[in-house]
Amino acid sequence: MEGIPFHVEVVGLIAATLTTISFVPQVYKIWKTKSAESVSLTMFLLFFTGVVLWFVYGVYIGSLSMTIANTITGALSLIIIYYKLKLK
Amino acid sequence: MEGIPFHVEVVGLIAATLTTISFVPQVYKIWKTKSAESVSLTMFLLFFTGVVLWFVYGVYIGSLSMTIANTITGALSLIIIYYKLKLK
Repeated sequence: MEGIPFHVEVVGLIAATLTTISFVPQVYKIWKTKSAESVSLTMFLLFFTGVVLWFVYGVYIGSLSMTIANTITGALSLIIIYYKLKLK
Repeated sequence: MEGIPFHVEVVGLIAATLTTISFVPQVYKIWKTKSAESVSLTMFLLFFTGVVLWFVYGVYIGSLSMTIANTITGALSLIIIYYKLKLK
């Protein structure tokens, strides 16, 4: 499916940028403090699985914002999961 | 815009369910331990703003999954922000 209007895609791209870069300060905080104590592993495992499915959904509906955002968010979630397991 | 096929919407609804419920164990963990030490406030502020825009995008493209998911995810993010500010 194609045909999402450009101005709508702009809203999606800003949304995508925000929810994606939001994971950067979390990764930075864990890395800097070497602690992921109060971060929930269950949260990020469920979140990562969901992000993979959002990616699939984004591909199906032809949403550029969703495919790009979920690729990066998925990668950042994996980094958080890695730290959580490593620092436990 | 309407017309996302049902089987695609099912993928979206599963994705929505996973990324939404993922915030529940994080809220529970913060509540139980009374600590949000390693949770990044910047992350959840950026994330919440992004979720509001994803909601707008979802409305525009007529995506049921996105509007429902982002409403609940936004509410759960606000709870995490509240705890983070309260426990600081």
